[in-house]
Parts: sequence; C-alpha cells; structure tokens
Amino acid sequence: MLKRKQFIEKLVIEAGELIRERLHEDMSIEKKGGKRSDLVTSVDYEVERLLVEKLSQQFPEDSFLTEEKTVDLIESENVWIIDPIDGTMNFIYDQRDFAISVALYSKGKAKLGFVYDVMANELIVAQKGLGVTLNDKPLEQILPVVLKQSIVDVSLKTIRNLKIKEIADLYDLTPEILTNRNMGSAAIRIVHIALNRVHAYINDNLSIWDIAAAILILEELGGTHNFKGQDLDYNSEGFFFMAANNQKIYDEIKTLFFK
Amino acid sequence: MLKRKQFIEKLVIEAGELIRERLHEDMSIEKKGGKRSDLVTSVDYEVERLLVEKLSQQFPEDSFLTEEKTVDLIESENVWIIDPIDGTMNFIYDQRDFAISVALYSKGKAKLGFVYDVMANELIVAQKGLGVTLNDKPLEQILPVVLKQSIVDVSLKTIRNLKIKEIADLYDLTPEILTNRNMGSAAIRIVHIALNRVHAYINDNLSIWDIAAAILILEELGGTHNFKGQDLDYNSEGFFFMAANNQKIYDEIKTLFFK
Repeated sequence: MLKRKQFIEKLVIEAGELIRERLHEDMSIEKKGGKRSDLVTSVDYEVERLLVEKLSQQFPEDSFLTEEKTVDLIESENVWIIDPIDGTMNFIYDQRDFAISVALYSKGKAKLGFVYDVMANELIVAQKGLGVTLNDKPLEQILPVVLKQSIVDVSLKTIRNLKIKEIADLYDLTPEILTNRNMGSAAIRIVHIALNRVHAYINDNLSIWDIAAAILILEELGGTHNFKGQDLDYNSEGFFFMAANNQKIYDEIKTLFFK
Repeated sequence: MLKRKQFIEKLVIEAGELIRERLHEDMSIEKKGGKRSDLVTSVDYEVERLLVEKLSQQFPEDSFLTEEKTVDLIESENVWIIDPIDGTMNFIYDQRDFAISVALYSKGKAKLGFVYDVMANELIVAQKGLGVTLNDKPLEQILPVVLKQSIVDVSLKTIRNLKIKEIADLYDLTPEILTNRNMGSAAIRIVHIALNRVHAYINDNLSIWDIAAAILILEELGGTHNFKGQDLDYNSEGFFFMAANNQKIYDEIKTLFFK
C-alpha cells in the first residue's frame, strides 16, 4: 500500500502541474449528455488519460472507475476511482477551486484517498486507519461545532431540487446556521469539513468519483456522511449526499429540514 | 493621483503580508452589534489602523471612511474608503477568499480603486478613465454573456431576505442561468465580474466600503450596477446591490425576479 501511496502522490502533483500549464492555453469545452451545466474540457480527458496510463503501467492488475469513462471498469481487487477535475465549471471560469480526486478501493472498501486542490496547492492524503496529511503534515481530528456556528455548503440548485422532489425544504436554513456557502466542488468541500473550514455539505446529485477520496479523508478525521459504514457501490450515480462535522449537527439538519 | 496610486499599491501589498503572517497566530474574534454572522477580528482592526496611519502621514489633508470605524469621517476633498478585510468570515474559517479594499473618492466620485485578494495574490487596480490592471497587467473589456450562460453569485440569506421583504423571488433563478455560486466576499465577486469569472452579483445588505473600490474596477471594464452614474453617498449602509456583466442580463434578472 505504501508503494501505491508514494507513486500516486507524485503522479497527482505531476497532473496538477499539467493543469496549471493548460490554464494558459486554449481548450475545448463540451456539454455532457447535452446538459448545459455539466461541462467537460479537453484537459479533463488529458488528465484522466495521464493518470490511468501511468497507474496501469505501474500496477497492471488494478482496474479503473473514472468520471470521463476513457477506460471501462473491469472489477479487480484494487479499483482506482478517478475524477480528473472535480469542479470543471470552476476550472473553466474561476480558474480556481477545482481538484484532482483519486481513491483506491478494494472490494468496496476505501484504502487510499487523494484530493489535490490544484490552485491552492493543497494535497490531502488519507490512508485507511492511518490518518490524514495536508502537504505531508499530519492533521488533527475535526473540532466539533454546534449547528448555530456551522457553515453549510449547498447550492441553490440542490435546494430547489430537494424541494421539488419533496425530500427537504432548506429555504429556511440560514437562520439556523452561521452562514451558507456554495463553492462548486464536492471533493474540496467534503475535505474542507475535515479541515474545519466548513461544517456540512449537501448535494442532491453526486457520483462515486466525486466523493470516493474525500469521504475517506473525512472519516479518518471523525466526520460523518450518509454512506458511512457501507461498502461503496461502484455503479451508483446521481445520488443524494450529505456530510457533516459531527453526527449531532448531521441529525439536526435532517430532523429540521428533511421529510 | 499617480503618487497616491503608487503609494497605496505598495501599502496594500504590505498589509496583505501582515494578514498572511497573522493567519498563523491567535486572533480575537468579536460579533459586531451582537449579530452572529457579522464578525470582526483583531486583524481587521490592525490592518485598518496600518492603512489609515500610513495614508494620513503621507496625505495629511485626506480623510477616511472605514468599516471598523477606527477613525471618524471628516469630509475633505479626498476621502479614502477602506474595508481592511472584506469577507471576514472566509478569513476566519476558510483562510482564503477575502480581500483588502481601498478606494479614493473625491466629492462622491471614484478616482482610484484597489482590491487585493490576499491569498490568491491578485491585486486589481483601477484609475478613473485609465482602465484596470491585474498584478500590473492591463485588462481587456468584459466579454458579454447571455443570461443562460451566466454564473450568478448570490447567498441563500439574500434570496430569503428579498423574498421576505417582497422585493424579489429568486428561488427559481437556477433554471434561467448557468449556475449559482456564493463565495462570501462582495469586493472579490464584483471584481470577478470584471474578470469574466462570474457574471452577476446580488446582495441585499451591503455598505459603501464593500463596493467603493470594486465598482470603479467594474465600470472601467464595461460592467454595470445599480448605482452607476450616481455620486456615492458616503453615509449609506445596508443597501441592496446588484452588479452584472452587461446591461441586458442585468435587466433580464430584474424583469424576471424583481417586483
């Protein structure tokens, strides 16, 4: 496992350098499945291919589950789950607040998680049972907060969709919390819960590659989420996700706003 | 004016260095007016005092309008409008996405505007009639977008307040735009309209120091906002503010969502 960890750390940083170079060049942008807000660029594909190629050279027995589907998933013992750029819209417009997310799972169980916030140059690495580092420095367990002191990252789109689907009414969330934010990268914001920068994250439409690495980081530091304790289902897409600083505020948000 | 511009540029960068040092030290945090989400730290005061002290030594005839009120406004020809840290909540929790905002006004008219995104190390400077630079590089005019391709920064709190006050119903904003974000710094997001990173910004409760520098930057590059063409009223606080990439999307947002 250590060999895999050291190899991917270097590779993720190399991929980050590639992205920073590409920011100053022309790139092509496509809509996925004709959806106006689900964008993919030539850089997403390029980074995914780089990661898959180097990993499969080094670990030929391993298989891959990737956002951009440049490779088919053939389930083997070790599965790398890759989102080459989480927060593609931020990458295109803001040129910040996007991340490379890489996780290693074995039969549905997380072994390694890497989230690299490229422009902030923050590489967060978790190894199951062995804690988390931020740029090689070990991180402490999460500091618990109460709901009134919580910053919750949730988009207006999620709030609207949860209301339409009659799952939750979050329109009156703000008086119950410290404040709301909406950054646009699931991987970064789940990791930010682990870093005490925000305290909850809610999204009605995520996929495995968005969360695979970040939830291991969160769990290792004591945070919670709605799949905690379950084996990861490699085939699930478009699911509801909620993560929080601690179980108490998780339960309070659920009790106050969810039906 | 050039002398003032060069002096304040160096001073703002010096203040940014001070903030970066203070991030690693203990700081005191207070609630302003007992409001849970209106926070001020010892660093806000320290930065404001530094700016006021150095500016008043250099330009003893000038006066000051500042967020933290460490000095009284005595109106003179030249008034410096200062927000030492715009986005204090981000400063405390996220340790990024906050800015120093300094503007020079003369009889209500903007002369100079400086917004320094400290952690991104982006200093944006506008001089009335002479355009805008980002870290000394001249910027081009804003690229116009249509509403369906627009990213709108607005908080859930603003959306809720506008609905309660029966001013606007923005709950169905998302299907009309590309996406919504909420970063938590007015100065940075107004500047980001000028940089084509977002395309509109809406807030129901701003004050002069939040916008004084950023609106000059926006105007110089062709953006619009609800005070454009008016002299600044130094005494106004807690007002509604809306800025946009171009007049057409500004009008469309107003027509679709405001009463």
